[in-house]
Amino acid sequence: MDWTSGGFQGEPDDRPSRDSKTGADVSFSPSGKAWGGRFEMATDRRVELFTESISFDHRLYRQDIRGSIAHVEMLARVGLVTDDERGRIVTALEEIEQEIAQGRFPFSIEKEDIHMHIESALIAKLGDAGRKIHTARSRNDQVATDFKMWVRDALDRVEAGILTLQRAMILKGWHWRDAVMPGYTHLQRAQPVIAAHALLAYVEKLERDQGRLRDARKRLNECPLGAAALAGTSLPIDRRGVAEALGFDRITANSLDAASDRDFALEAVFGLATLSLHLSGWAEEWVLWSGGEFGFLKLPDALCTGSSIMPQKKNPDVLELIRGKSARVVGALTTLMVLVKGLPLAYNRDLQEDKQPVFDAFDTVESILAVAAPLVEGAELNRERILRDLEDGFLDATTLMEHLIARGAPQRSAHETVGRLVAECERRGLRRLSDLDPALFAQIDPRLDAETPKLLGVAQAVKAFRSEGSTAPDLVETQLRRWADRLQLTLE
Amino acid sequence: MDWTSGGFQGEPDDRPSRDSKTGADVSFSPSGKAWGGRFEMATDRRVELFTESISFDHRLYRQDIRGSIAHVEMLARVGLVTDDERGRIVTALEEIEQEIAQGRFPFSIEKEDIHMHIESALIAKLGDAGRKIHTARSRNDQVATDFKMWVRDALDRVEAGILTLQRAMILKGWHWRDAVMPGYTHLQRAQPVIAAHALLAYVEKLERDQGRLRDARKRLNECPLGAAALAGTSLPIDRRGVAEALGFDRITANSLDAASDRDFALEAVFGLATLSLHLSGWAEEWVLWSGGEFGFLKLPDALCTGSSIMPQKKNPDVLELIRGKSARVVGALTTLMVLVKGLPLAYNRDLQEDKQPVFDAFDTVESILAVAAPLVEGAELNRERILRDLEDGFLDATTLMEHLIARGAPQRSAHETVGRLVAECERRGLRRLSDLDPALFAQIDPRLDAETPKLLGVAQAVKAFRSEGSTAPDLVETQLRRWADRLQLTLE
Amino acid sequence: MDWTSGGFQGEPDDRPSRDSKTGADVSFSPSGKAWGGRFEMATDRRVELFTESISFDHRLYRQDIRGSIAHVEMLARVGLVTDDERGRIVTALEEIEQEIAQGRFPFSIEKEDIHMHIESALIAKLGDAGRKIHTARSRNDQVATDFKMWVRDALDRVEAGILTLQRAMILKGWHWRDAVMPGYTHLQRAQPVIAAHALLAYVEKLERDQGRLRDARKRLNECPLGAAALAGTSLPIDRRGVAEALGFDRITANSLDAASDRDFALEAVFGLATLSLHLSGWAEEWVLWSGGEFGFLKLPDALCTGSSIMPQKKNPDVLELIRGKSARVVGALTTLMVLVKGLPLAYNRDLQEDKQPVFDAFDTVESILAVAAPLVEGAELNRERILRDLEDGFLDATTLMEHLIARGAPQRSAHETVGRLVAECERRGLRRLSDLDPALFAQIDPRLDAETPKLLGVAQAVKAFRSEGSTAPDLVETQLRRWADRLQLTLE
Amino acid sequence: MDWTSGGFQGEPDDRPSRDSKTGADVSFSPSGKAWGGRFEMATDRRVELFTESISFDHRLYRQDIRGSIAHVEMLARVGLVTDDERGRIVTALEEIEQEIAQGRFPFSIEKEDIHMHIESALIAKLGDAGRKIHTARSRNDQVATDFKMWVRDALDRVEAGILTLQRAMILKGWHWRDAVMPGYTHLQRAQPVIAAHALLAYVEKLERDQGRLRDARKRLNECPLGAAALAGTSLPIDRRGVAEALGFDRITANSLDAASDRDFALEAVFGLATLSLHLSGWAEEWVLWSGGEFGFLKLPDALCTGSSIMPQKKNPDVLELIRGKSARVVGALTTLMVLVKGLPLAYNRDLQEDKQPVFDAFDTVESILAVAAPLVEGAELNRERILRDLEDGFLDATTLMEHLIARGAPQRSAHETVGRLVAECERRGLRRLSDLDPALFAQIDPRLDAETPKLLGVAQAVKAFRSEGSTAPDLVETQLRRWADRLQLTLE
Repeated sequence: MDWTSGGFQGEPDDRPSRDSKTGADVSFSPSGKAWGGRFEMATDRRVELFTESISFDHRLYRQDIRGSIAHVEMLARVGLVTDDERGRIVTALEEIEQEIAQGRFPFSIEKEDIHMHIESALIAKLGDAGRKIHTARSRNDQVATDFKMWVRDALDRVEAGILTLQRAMILKGWHWRDAVMPGYTHLQRAQPVIAAHALLAYVEKLERDQGRLRDARKRLNECPLGAAALAGTSLPIDRRGVAEALGFDRITANSLDAASDRDFALEAVFGLATLSLHLSGWAEEWVLWSGGEFGFLKLPDALCTGSSIMPQKKNPDVLELIRGKSARVVGALTTLMVLVKGLPLAYNRDLQEDKQPVFDAFDTVESILAVAAPLVEGAELNRERILRDLEDGFLDATTLMEHLIARGAPQRSAHETVGRLVAECERRGLRRLSDLDPALFAQIDPRLDAETPKLLGVAQAVKAFRSEGSTAPDLVETQLRRWADRLQLTLE
Repeated sequence: MDWTSGGFQGEPDDRPSRDSKTGADVSFSPSGKAWGGRFEMATDRRVELFTESISFDHRLYRQDIRGSIAHVEMLARVGLVTDDERGRIVTALEEIEQEIAQGRFPFSIEKEDIHMHIESALIAKLGDAGRKIHTARSRNDQVATDFKMWVRDALDRVEAGILTLQRAMILKGWHWRDAVMPGYTHLQRAQPVIAAHALLAYVEKLERDQGRLRDARKRLNECPLGAAALAGTSLPIDRRGVAEALGFDRITANSLDAASDRDFALEAVFGLATLSLHLSGWAEEWVLWSGGEFGFLKLPDALCTGSSIMPQKKNPDVLELIRGKSARVVGALTTLMVLVKGLPLAYNRDLQEDKQPVFDAFDTVESILAVAAPLVEGAELNRERILRDLEDGFLDATTLMEHLIARGAPQRSAHETVGRLVAECERRGLRRLSDLDPALFAQIDPRLDAETPKLLGVAQAVKAFRSEGSTAPDLVETQLRRWADRLQLTLE
Repeated sequence: MDWTSGGFQGEPDDRPSRDSKTGADVSFSPSGKAWGGRFEMATDRRVELFTESISFDHRLYRQDIRGSIAHVEMLARVGLVTDDERGRIVTALEEIEQEIAQGRFPFSIEKEDIHMHIESALIAKLGDAGRKIHTARSRNDQVATDFKMWVRDALDRVEAGILTLQRAMILKGWHWRDAVMPGYTHLQRAQPVIAAHALLAYVEKLERDQGRLRDARKRLNECPLGAAALAGTSLPIDRRGVAEALGFDRITANSLDAASDRDFALEAVFGLATLSLHLSGWAEEWVLWSGGEFGFLKLPDALCTGSSIMPQKKNPDVLELIRGKSARVVGALTTLMVLVKGLPLAYNRDLQEDKQPVFDAFDTVESILAVAAPLVEGAELNRERILRDLEDGFLDATTLMEHLIARGAPQRSAHETVGRLVAECERRGLRRLSDLDPALFAQIDPRLDAETPKLLGVAQAVKAFRSEGSTAPDLVETQLRRWADRLQLTLE
Repeated sequence: MDWTSGGFQGEPDDRPSRDSKTGADVSFSPSGKAWGGRFEMATDRRVELFTESISFDHRLYRQDIRGSIAHVEMLARVGLVTDDERGRIVTALEEIEQEIAQGRFPFSIEKEDIHMHIESALIAKLGDAGRKIHTARSRNDQVATDFKMWVRDALDRVEAGILTLQRAMILKGWHWRDAVMPGYTHLQRAQPVIAAHALLAYVEKLERDQGRLRDARKRLNECPLGAAALAGTSLPIDRRGVAEALGFDRITANSLDAASDRDFALEAVFGLATLSLHLSGWAEEWVLWSGGEFGFLKLPDALCTGSSIMPQKKNPDVLELIRGKSARVVGALTTLMVLVKGLPLAYNRDLQEDKQPVFDAFDTVESILAVAAPLVEGAELNRERILRDLEDGFLDATTLMEHLIARGAPQRSAHETVGRLVAECERRGLRRLSDLDPALFAQIDPRLDAETPKLLGVAQAVKAFRSEGSTAPDLVETQLRRWADRLQLTLE
C-alpha cells in the first residue's frame, strides 16, 4: 500500500538549489531543473503536479542506481570520467540507495522523477563529479533501461510465484488422485473426471503463462542505454560493456526504436492478463464448488471472510477477488495499448504513463499468486457430498455409447440409441441408466445385452478411459508424477 | 499522491479487541472481525492483505460518516435507538471525522475497510451504543451509498472543471476571433477557418460531455441504503427520510438490484473517458501547432518542460500527458466492464475492485482539467507565422467551386473544373489559384471571367461563408457571445 | 448474415464512366472518382480494396436516400436547383432505393461507398441534374447525417426490444410472485427471496439501460448536414429546414465539431455494452439455476441444444451465448475509443472505421433481445426442487438477528449471538436453527425464549421483511403491478 | 468481403433429414440435429439463428476436412473403421471440399456450423459409413483442432507479410541512407537523423512482432484432437499419429485443458494488436510527413484519394486507415479477454464467440500489410523541402554540448552553457548557433574557441555520432546491410 511506504513523508520543503544541510549549490541550473538552461520562467506549480512521476517511479530507485553505477564504470573505462570520480560517484550512489531503502531520503515534487532525485542528491554530495553522471545518456534511454530492469525483476518474481502455485496444485492433486467427481461442459454434468485432472488442467494453463512470460523476458533483454535521447551520441561509449554489466543479453540495435519502444511493457502485461484470466476461471469454478449447491469444496476459515449482517455466512471472498482482480490487469493492458496508439517516433511524454499500469498489473498478479497457493493447500474435497449425487446426470452415457461403437455401431446411431435410453429414464423417473430394466437394452440395440448394466455407473465409466490426456486414473497419476519431476517435487 | 496523505503512517500495531488508550473491550467479536461469530480460526494474514480495502477506500470517510449520521437519525425517529444514543453517536462520528481529517486516526489492515474502521472507533468510544449503528443495514448497501455520494461529489467537481475550461476557451476565442488559419481534414490543409472556430468546436464537445455527466448524476441519485444485504430488512426503517437527508432524489426500488448495481460507476467513468478522449484530440492538435513545422502556437515557458540532454528543447509535455492520460481513463472503464461481466445477483466481493478505477479516472480527469484551463489561457497564436504560409494549400479552391455552382454549374462539374485549375497550378509551380493567368479561367469555364481572381485568396474565402455553424467571422462572433451568455462570462 | 444479403452478388464488372445499359457518360471525372479532378494516376486496386466501405456501409442506403431527398428539396427552396430538377432527382432516388431493396442494384468496389454508389446511379439516370445533388454538402457531413439516422433507427428498435423483455419478465414474475427461493451473496445462500424479486431486479437494470439509450438518442439528435467538409459553405442553404425534415431536433452549432464528432456512436455503444453486461449476469445466473446442482429452472427443449458426443446433455447454449456475446459489445466500445484517441480536427479517414463496431454492437444486442424474451417466457421454476433444500443455509439467521435487535440488542451483539447459534448447529450436525433445543435460545440471550423457534424457518423469514424495496411478498406484488401499469401490461 | 463469397446463396430450403437429390435418409436423428436423441421439441427458429455459426465458421472448411481425413485414417489404423470405409470417407470428404471451394455446396442455418454441414453431407453421400466419422471425437476437440490449424495458417501468411514489409523498408532505406532529416522527441525537432534510420526503427519493431507471432505459433502447435468432449475417450485411438499427420509438434496433455483452452487465440491476436499499434505510429508519422507543414514525403497519386468537395485535396487515406484499423485489432483482443473471463472448465458455448474477433484481427492485419509495403515502395522524400528548414530547431545543440563534455565539462554544466547559447540566439532572432558571433563562444566557456563554429551545423552533427545503434551514416549503412543479409535482399 502506498500509504505504508515509509520513506515518503509528504512534500518536504526542500529547495532544489541548496543542499538542506550544507547550503551548498546543488542546482542543475538557475531554474533548478535539469533542463532549465533556456527557460526564463519557473515552472507552474500545477504543471509540476501534473507532470511529476516521483510519486510512483520512486519504485525504480534500485534499478536506477544499478544502471548509473554500470554507466559510470563504463565512463571511467572510456576516459570520460576519472577513476577517482568513478569511485566517489559509486560510493555516493550506494549511500543514496541506503538512504532511500531506509526511508531517510527526502522526495519532492519539484524534482519530477526518481532519476532527477538521485542525480540531484549526487550533485549535492559531489558537486562537479556528480554533474558528470548524465554524460552520454538521456532520460529517455535511462528510463527505458531502468524500467526494463524493473520488469525483468518482477517477471522473475512472477515466475517463482507460478512455480509455487503449480507445485501446490500437483501436491493437492496427488491427494485427489482417487477422487471421482462430475466433469462439466456448459456447466452441466457431462462425464466423470478425477479431481486431480482438473488441477492438472490449470497446471497446463499456468505452464503456457510461464512460457509466455519467459518469452517476454527474453525479448525484453536488450539494453537501450546509450541510445541517448533518440539518435545516439558522439561520445566514445561502450554500450556492450554496460549491457553485460546489467545482465542484458545484447544492446538495442536502433536508437529511435530504443527511445520509443514499450513492447516489453505490453508483452509482460499481456502475459499477466492471460494468467489472471486463467485464475479468474479457476476462481469461478471454486466459488461454485464451495457454494451450498455444489458443496464439493471446503475452504479453511482462515482463508474466508464473513458478512457484517448475515451471521451464518462464510464467503469465498479471496476467490471472488481473484476473479475480480483479473479485470484490472486487462484494464492495464488496455491502458498501455491506448497509450501507444498513434505515437510517432521517438520519445513522447505520453510514455511516462506506462509505469502505473505495469506496476499495478504486477502488484495485482503477485498478490493473487501469494494467496492462490495457500488456498489450494488449504482446500479439502467434501468427498461424501460429491458421492451423494455422483450418479446424477448420466455421466456414464458416453461410455455406453462408446461401448456400442466398439461393438460396431456407427457413432451417430449409437449416440441416438443412448439418447433414447436417457429419455426413457427421464420418462420413468429413473436417475441412472443402470436402473432401467436390463431386458430393455437388447431390445433397443442387439449389440447390448444383459451384461450391459455391469459396464454402467460412474466408477466403471472413469476406469474405461484410455486415450492419452484423458482422465483415466493411471494416466492422471502418470501426469502427476511427470509434473512432480519437472517441478522438483516429492509426492507423498 | 498517496504518499503525501498525511494521516496514513503505516500499519499501527493496534489490537482490534482492546482500545489502545483505555484498554476497553472494543471488539466486534472474539475473532476481532465484525463477522467473526461463526469462525473458529483467525484470518490468515495474507488474506487480510489481499482482501483489505482500507488503503484506498479511506477516501470515502466523509461520505461514510455523513451516511451514518443520516442513518442513526432515522433509527432514532423510528425508535430503534434512543434519542440519547443518537446524540452520542452523532457526536462521536463527528469526532472521528475530525480525527481522520487531521491525520490523527489510526488505520490498520486488520479492520479491512473504512466502514469497519469508523464503526470500530465508534464502539471504542461508546460501547453498546456504537454496536447499534449497523442496525438495519449491511456493508453492501452502506458501501453502495457511500460510493454513490463520493461519485456524486466528484461529478460536481468535474462539472465545475469543465465550465472553467469552456470559459477559458471562450475568452481565448474572443481574442482569436479575427485570426484566420488553415482548417484541416486528413491533416491536410482544406479550407480557412477562424482560430476561435476551432476552440468553439471543443466547447461543443465539452458541452456534450457535461450533458452526459449530468445525466449520469441524475440516474445515480437513488439511495440504496436500506436494501441491507440483498433482501431488505424486517426492521421498521424509513428509507425515504434517509434518502432525502443525504440529498438523493429517490430510493432504489429493488434490494437485489441495489446490492449489485454498479451502473453509476460505469456511466460516470464512460463520461470521463469520452471527455478525456476529446481532450486527447485537442492535445494532439496543439502538440502539432506548437511544433516547429506548424509553428502556430506559443506556449508559456511556465507550462512547458525541457530535455535533460538536448539544451535547446522546449517540450509540450503537459499536452502530451493530457493525450496519454486518456489511456488510463479508457483502461479504467475496461476494468469496470470486465469486472461486472458475468456476475450473478446480488453482491459479489469482486465489486470491491470497483473503487480504484473510479478514483483513478476522476483523479486523472480532474488533474487534466486543472492544467488545461491555464494552458488555454497562456497560449498565444503566432500570427506572423500563420500568415506566412496561409495562402499555401489552395484553401480558396472550394469557394471558387461554390462560386461556379452559384452561377449554375453542377457541383460535380465545378469540382472537376477547379480540380483542373489546381493541377494546372501545380504543373506550373504556382502556389495560388490567383497566380494563374486570369485569361485561363474563362477559357476553362465561361462562368468564370477576369473578375474571378478578385474572389480568390484566403481572406475572401473566409468571408464568403454564410451557412449556420460555419466559420463565417460574424457567425463565429455570434457563437462566442452566445456561449459567453450561457457561461456567464463578460467578453472584453 | 452477410452471405444471405440477397442484393450483393459480388463485384459486377461495371465501368464507372459508362452506364451499363445506355452507354451514356456517367462519370464524375476522367478517373472515375468523385474527387479525381487533380489526380493523374488511377487508384491502385489494393488501395480500392483497402479503403472501400461499400461492403458494410450499404446498410446506410435508406438513410442516405432519405437525407438526399431532404437536401435536394431544400436546394430547390433556396434556388440552387430548379423545381424540375428537384422532382426528377427525388423520383430517381426513390427508384434507386427500390432497386437496392429488391437486390437489383449493382455494387462495386470502385465506387468506394454507398454515397458514391447512389450519386453515381443518380448521374447515370439524370446526367447534369444528378451532378447537382452534392451541392453544398461534403461526404463528411453526409456520412455523419446518414450514420446518425441509422443509429437513431437502431436505438428505436432496441428500445422496443428492451420493453418486450421487461414485459416478459414482469409477466413471468407475476407467475413467480409466490415462489420463495434462496437469495445469494458471494454465491452463498444468504436470505430468502421471492423469485419475482430477482426478475424485478433485472427490470430495474434494464430501465436504466433504457434511460441511457434514450439520453443518447436525445443528445445525438442534432443534424450535421450543411457543415460541409469542415467549415460550412458559402451557398445560401437552409440547414434548419433539412434538419426538421429529417426528424432532428436542432442543427449542430459548429462545423468543425460536426465533421469530427462521433460521440453518438460511442455513447450508443456504451449504452449497449452496459445492457449486454446486465444480461451477461442474468445469463450466468440462469446457467447456474438450470444446471444439475441448483436445479431451480427448466428451460424448454426448443430453446436448448445438445451435445454431439454426450447423448444425455441438454445445454443452456442460448444463455451461454448471451453471456459470451457481451464480450463483443465491450470490444466494439474499445474499438471506438481507441479509434478516436488522439485525432485532431476535423475529419480524418480513420473515422470510416466507426461503422462496423456500431453495426456489430447493435446486431449483437438486437439478437440477444430477440431470444431473451422467449427464454423468459418459456422458463419454468422447478418448485419441488427449490423446496427440497430451501431450509439449507440458515436463510432465517438474519431475521433472528433482527428479532433480537427489535428487542433491544445492539446489532453487533445480536450478530454475534446468532453467529454462535449457527456454529452450534454446525457442531451438532443440525441443518436448521429451529432444530436446536428451544431451551438453548434463552440460555444464550434472555431476549430469546421458547417462542423463538416459531419465528424461524424460511417461510417466516420472507414474510418478516417490511422495508421498501425489500422482498416482502406484498411489496413485490406492488412492484409488479407498478411495472405492469408502466409497461401497459395486464396481469392475469 | 463477405457479400462476394460466391458459394453462399442465402438459406436453401434443405431438409436435413432427406437428401435433396436421392431422398435418402440423411438424418442424424428424428429432430434432424446431431444431438437430438433425447429432445422432444424441434429447435426454435430464433434459437437456430442465434446459435448458428455457419455464417462465419465456414471459413474453417479446409481445416475441418483435413482434420477429418487424418482422423479417419487413424480410426482405420486402430480398427474402428474398415479400410473400405476409410477409403470412401476420404473420397467423399475430398468431394465435399471441392464442392465448397467451387461454391456448389448448400449452406443452411439448421445445420449450425461447418462441422455439422460436412458431417451431414458425408452421411448423405455414404450413409452408415458417414455416421462413423464422429467416432472418438467431440465438436469440442474438433473445433479446437480446426481453429488452431486456421490460426496457424494465418500466422504463416502474416509472417510472410511482415517479411515483405521489412524488405520494402530496407530497400527504401537504402535509397534514403544519405538523406539527413530532423529527428523528433515530443514532436519537437531534436537532433538530426538519417531518414533510413527511422525506417530501421520500424524494421526492429516488426522483428519483435515477428518473434512474438512465431512464439505464439510454437505454443499453439499442440493437437487437441482426441480430448473428446472434456475427459478423453474409452476407444483405442492414436492421438500422436493424428497430431503428426496434421503438422502438430505434440498432443495436448490434459483433456479438460484442451477443451477449454483459447490461449492461442488471445496470444495470436495480442501479437497482431502490437503489430497494428506499431503501424499506427508509423502511419501517424507519415501522415504528418506528407502534410503541407512538414512536407517531407510525397505519396504516389495511385495510393491516395481525394475529397468529394474540396477539389485541391490529396489525402493520405491509406495511412489514416492503417492508423484507425489498429483500433479494431485492439477491440478484438478486448473481446477475447472479456469472453474467457470467469469461465469454469471445460467447454462453454461462450467460446463459439472466439472466431469472429480472430478472423477480423487477421483480416485487418493482412489487409494493412498488403497496402503498407506498396506505400513504402512508392513513397519519395521531398529532399529539397527537408533541406529548406533543416537548420531550424538547433539540431546541433546536443553535439556542441558533447563537444564540451569531451573537453572536460561536466554534462550538467555543458547542458547549461549550450542552453544559454540557444537562449541567446532566440533573443537575437538568430536561427542557428553558427550565426552567433564566434567570439561569444569562448566568452561563455573557455573550452570553446573560434574554431567551434566549424563543428556546428546539421551536416557536422550527424557525422559526429559514433555510438552503436546511433544514426551515424556508416552505422546506418551497416545496419541496412545486416538486414539485407538477414532478409535475403540484394541492395542496389
